[in-house]
Amino acid sequence: MPTYTAPVRDMEFIMYDVLKMDEYQDMEGYGDADRSTVAAILEEGAKISQEVIQPINLSGDEEGCHLNNGIVTTPKGFKEAYQAYAEGGWSALTGSVEFGGQGLPYVLGLAMNEMVCSANFSFSMYPGLTHGAIEAIEQYGSTEQKEMYLPKLISGEWTGTMNLTEAHAGTDLGLLRTKAVPQADGTYLVNGSKIFISAGDHDLTDNIIHLVLARLPDAPPGVKGISLFIVPKILVNADGSLGARNPVECSRLEEKLGIHGNSTCVLNFEDAVGYMVGEANKGLVAMFAMMNAARLGVGVQGLSIAQVAYENAAAYAKERLQMRALTGPKAPDKPADPIIVHPDIRRMLLTGRSFCEAARGIAYWAGLLVDMVHKHPDPKQRQKADDLLGLLTPVIKAYFTDMGTEVANLSLQCLGGHGYIKEWGLEQFVRDVRVAQIYEGANGIQALDLVGRKLPANKGRAVQVFFTEVGGFCEENADNEELAPFIAPVMSALEQLFEGGQWMADNGVKNPDHAGAGATNYLYVIALSIMGFMWVKIVKVAQEKLAAGAGNEQFYKDKLTLAKFFFERMMPDLQAHMAKLKSGADTLMAMDTDSF
Amino acid sequence: MPTYTAPVRDMEFIMYDVLKMDEYQDMEGYGDADRSTVAAILEEGAKISQEVIQPINLSGDEEGCHLNNGIVTTPKGFKEAYQAYAEGGWSALTGSVEFGGQGLPYVLGLAMNEMVCSANFSFSMYPGLTHGAIEAIEQYGSTEQKEMYLPKLISGEWTGTMNLTEAHAGTDLGLLRTKAVPQADGTYLVNGSKIFISAGDHDLTDNIIHLVLARLPDAPPGVKGISLFIVPKILVNADGSLGARNPVECSRLEEKLGIHGNSTCVLNFEDAVGYMVGEANKGLVAMFAMMNAARLGVGVQGLSIAQVAYENAAAYAKERLQMRALTGPKAPDKPADPIIVHPDIRRMLLTGRSFCEAARGIAYWAGLLVDMVHKHPDPKQRQKADDLLGLLTPVIKAYFTDMGTEVANLSLQCLGGHGYIKEWGLEQFVRDVRVAQIYEGANGIQALDLVGRKLPANKGRAVQVFFTEVGGFCEENADNEELAPFIAPVMSALEQLFEGGQWMADNGVKNPDHAGAGATNYLYVIALSIMGFMWVKIVKVAQEKLAAGAGNEQFYKDKLTLAKFFFERMMPDLQAHMAKLKSGADTLMAMDTDSF
Repeated sequence: MPTYTAPVRDMEFIMYDVLKMDEYQDMEGYGDADRSTVAAILEEGAKISQEVIQPINLSGDEEGCHLNNGIVTTPKGFKEAYQAYAEGGWSALTGSVEFGGQGLPYVLGLAMNEMVCSANFSFSMYPGLTHGAIEAIEQYGSTEQKEMYLPKLISGEWTGTMNLTEAHAGTDLGLLRTKAVPQADGTYLVNGSKIFISAGDHDLTDNIIHLVLARLPDAPPGVKGISLFIVPKILVNADGSLGARNPVECSRLEEKLGIHGNSTCVLNFEDAVGYMVGEANKGLVAMFAMMNAARLGVGVQGLSIAQVAYENAAAYAKERLQMRALTGPKAPDKPADPIIVHPDIRRMLLTGRSFCEAARGIAYWAGLLVDMVHKHPDPKQRQKADDLLGLLTPVIKAYFTDMGTEVANLSLQCLGGHGYIKEWGLEQFVRDVRVAQIYEGANGIQALDLVGRKLPANKGRAVQVFFTEVGGFCEENADNEELAPFIAPVMSALEQLFEGGQWMADNGVKNPDHAGAGATNYLYVIALSIMGFMWVKIVKVAQEKLAAGAGNEQFYKDKLTLAKFFFERMMPDLQAHMAKLKSGADTLMAMDTDSF
Repeated sequence: MPTYTAPVRDMEFIMYDVLKMDEYQDMEGYGDADRSTVAAILEEGAKISQEVIQPINLSGDEEGCHLNNGIVTTPKGFKEAYQAYAEGGWSALTGSVEFGGQGLPYVLGLAMNEMVCSANFSFSMYPGLTHGAIEAIEQYGSTEQKEMYLPKLISGEWTGTMNLTEAHAGTDLGLLRTKAVPQADGTYLVNGSKIFISAGDHDLTDNIIHLVLARLPDAPPGVKGISLFIVPKILVNADGSLGARNPVECSRLEEKLGIHGNSTCVLNFEDAVGYMVGEANKGLVAMFAMMNAARLGVGVQGLSIAQVAYENAAAYAKERLQMRALTGPKAPDKPADPIIVHPDIRRMLLTGRSFCEAARGIAYWAGLLVDMVHKHPDPKQRQKADDLLGLLTPVIKAYFTDMGTEVANLSLQCLGGHGYIKEWGLEQFVRDVRVAQIYEGANGIQALDLVGRKLPANKGRAVQVFFTEVGGFCEENADNEELAPFIAPVMSALEQLFEGGQWMADNGVKNPDHAGAGATNYLYVIALSIMGFMWVKIVKVAQEKLAAGAGNEQFYKDKLTLAKFFFERMMPDLQAHMAKLKSGADTLMAMDTDSF
């Protein structure tokens, strides 16, 4: 049976020592989030994750969800765990105080998401999807809609879903056909079929609030003719009580590689009553409000699984006795040495660990930026945060989830044959995390979003902000001799990043396929640059703490080792990506379609 | 439902145009293997693979194997397919003529294995494991044992297994505890428990011949005290008829990530009758005879799944309509363009295709070397072939299976959400092929075998042979201007390979952990060098054919495109591996065990 121990100490370190969250007291919600309060919340979050949500992970995978006579039920224990989660206030952690939320920093919500997902990926998706629905209604809903739906979504009494995909319309939402016909009473009748709806139906809550993309009868074709609708599973009366069942039926649960504990539904809308959110034909904009938050959340899923997979592989490697160390026996009193004596095992483990620690820094940084965008008093800072967040989001979504799969696979590999067997749990991590590379925009789409939208927007302002941020840090610390060996490769990465961006811009203008061909490589170049930047920030703190003799010396020394590992063994991929990027599109496009 | 079309034309191209198999007529079995005969055999092999074995792949995965009252049954259709396979003579394809085999070239056997495994990984393991048993008995068995077991193993009337692993003894076979006690009649009573026994029990054949590693009562500890035994499931009478049931019981079928159609058994031996193969305490040597062939076979499994995964992803990408090409609509009459217009989709597809075509060349080259080792009239050539084969085997095993997983994942990604759904079949490829990175020696062990054994053996003779082979080819073609752009990166790779080897040797002497730390990276450096070499060989043939106007121009032009793709988009990883290799072991070993 796999185990999970939430890295609470690391979370706190990132939040307060690296990101210095206590310097943002003037932002709403941050006054209540001093270090000791947050530490206590994290400990409680760790507790419910480890003790309530993790124990039903393996069994949930085995049992899966059920569909009987149109009723979807979740695996044994999910309902009780969800109740404990909602009653514990975890749903409401970062929700608006106005609608009953606790209004705590977004970063704290991400940390909680990280723990819940490490504990149980499938389970985490039920509350996870709700966040997107809240986001859309909060930003685009009417006052009435907010009052009717937000309190119960925030409290977790209801959950939410995102209904985008149709069989013939995945990435290309412009092709969607679901219809919404206006009625005399201001409502709409929604007809159509949606697929791949995560948490689309279940028995965890009394009601589910579907957010559905559909077309009005007179809508223009393509993405400019899409509107967003609230379609509750059970209609809500004016007094907030539950009314009639809305005709939204789950006609099939998909059989999938993983996330068996989450219901992936085909949902049929047959004259279902819907309520428009925001303006007609502006649904895509509202949907992107959900998507951006969702993409950050999906990135964190990659981190979550990398973390728990690493933990289980490390535990195995410390216990499993096979062969002797290459340098001679390390445990001569035992029949063999633990396999952690082998550098190749350490290479696999440290890849996971080194990814997780900097990735956590980046994810929480993005979380801080989310709050800055909404809450920072200085409009310049809000703008800067928005630029950076836009840049970081596709990188976090794609790089973190690619690495989630990579680290899960490396961790599985550490267990040898046992990694392939269900009871050890590693194979479930590999299966579960794989979906994160696909949903909320496949990773190739993230790369196109980065290169086609985020990079050129406002004449490249966002990436300029990033260069200034990193360059500024490096300059400030130019005299720091201890930090110099870590700053040098980051500066070099920045040069490459600049060159890569220039190449993409120059050649993409001539032929957009050149930009398309290098998009994924560019995403890796910037991802590794950001990772390097985060490691330098961590190293600086660790060096200061060590110099100050601030206790727990090993903890800070390990950060230096992990940083070295990153620069020695992960950063070199940047060079390869640059070479690939610069090879352009010609060879890719040379092959005739018929030859494939 | 996934499909499979065997790449028969490519197989023939590799065998006769690239490897020039018709120049080996003086080797036994090659006289009967002229191009048209082999083409006809491949077509028949493709037919049974595509029409009989592939259609039960998805259903076999879903149903899995069953264990009831000690009886193991395979999924629906497996027994009939196996009968068709054995009766079609496919088991006997490369077996010794002396024992009823057809004595055809080993390469042809590999090609058949490739097709059967592309069609159905789980199914392919039943006959696959038999080859190892044949190998061991043929090389180390007594005349009596050969006569008793080989004809029925070769004909496929019986299957064979390899029983190595125990719960506490995987990589470290020296720890194994299964006992074999000599009896007055010259037989042994075997007691113990083996785990992870592929095809360990089933209903496909009347008998199963287990090859089992065990210890004699007076055996020295460690690997020097291991002997090899034949333990038939059903005892065989002197006249060849079946006798009593031997007490070898399958007590559990493992629940695994994939290969559900193959029975992975815990086998308990309780006073089972065994017959020693070869000398006492020399069992490991005999087992390695099986292992080397098996490792080559496992490498081919990586190729097989990459091929079929690529095919299905390419088919999807040509059909799936989403979005428009970056350079403007390519199918303006349709609601969207097929996604194959996108360079990033092509990047994923071509990685698979470009891997498969050169990997096939390398695998079949290794197959040719297997025959040369045994059958070449010139002892120098036999020696050279043996050296090269020893070097290629761990590279093929590890690199091909890593790439099998990589390509399966990239192919799944091309299907987006559909890739994650069972009915499309891609997710099964990802699950099935993953085991190939683990069994027959985890890939990290392959890297250690390469660096610790194959590289230093005979003062580095094997890698010298490789350098001479490649260097010679490049020199011979130094005046070939058309080939020059392909030769240059191979020469550069060789320089890196030389430098990497030197680094490993110099630093490994000082500290073996440096060699251990760089082993996997070195394996990738040599793998990419070999891939590059194979691509140059293919390009040369393609250029000659194009110059000669030898028909099917597109076929040869595609080879040039695929080669370019390899050098532009796969070869650059070599540089990153070199940087990682040279970072050594210090950082890896710096972390305290407790800090993991």
